[in-house]
Amino acid sequence: MDENSTHDSASPPTVASPPRVRLQIKQGTALGPGKAALLEALERTGSISAAGRELNMSYRRAWLLIHSVNQAYKQPLVEATKGGAGGGGALLTPLGREVLSIYRRMERKALRAIQPDLEELQKLLHD
Amino acid sequence: MDENSTHDSASPPTVASPPRVRLQIKQGTALGPGKAALLEALERTGSISAAGRELNMSYRRAWLLIHSVNQAYKQPLVEATKGGAGGGGALLTPLGREVLSIYRRMERKALRAIQPDLEELQKLLHD
Repeated sequence: MDENSTHDSASPPTVASPPRVRLQIKQGTALGPGKAALLEALERTGSISAAGRELNMSYRRAWLLIHSVNQAYKQPLVEATKGGAGGGGALLTPLGREVLSIYRRMERKALRAIQPDLEELQKLLHD
Repeated sequence: MDENSTHDSASPPTVASPPRVRLQIKQGTALGPGKAALLEALERTGSISAAGRELNMSYRRAWLLIHSVNQAYKQPLVEATKGGAGGGGALLTPLGREVLSIYRRMERKALRAIQPDLEELQKLLHD
């Protein structure tokens, strides 16, 4: 996403949600909160369509995101599985689990690093 | 923005850009890279329309973003100025400068905290 996005202003007003850190690794590829959540849902559900449903995402959208991360890394993060009760699905590869784990670790470290500033900033927000 | 966004996949393929940290402080209000860039452009140009133009943003969009941050904090971050050569413009308030400075500091701290993991992750990306 570019600098000009207005996405955050389009969000409905909500009660305070826990502060989150969004990491943009490399423009156009990489990983962000949306893709990370999708990879996690895929690991949990074993299928692209189920993972997409969990995130209110069309199958096509979920597939495109997964295709994009698969292309971005040296090896795919997601692979198709054959057979089983559901007649095939998808799972994270070892690289997929590694990348996701690095990403979550980065989020935790970043959040820890900015905690004092975050508290300072939050005091300046409307209640 | 919610977890389901596919924004990053919609970015055109680009050459590697420096890793950036995106901070989402509080859903629907807060500050992100887009708003921070807009506040900076506004400080530089002294006008909402010029700042929006720098970011390829319509006046309406820029105004809405500024209105949204002005509402989000205890006091406005941006105030109108009267008179002058351009017949009035807009500038950051002291709180606006403070918030922007905290935000940029958080970005630097977060990036420093995740640098080793970032390097690890980048080795896994396609060249």
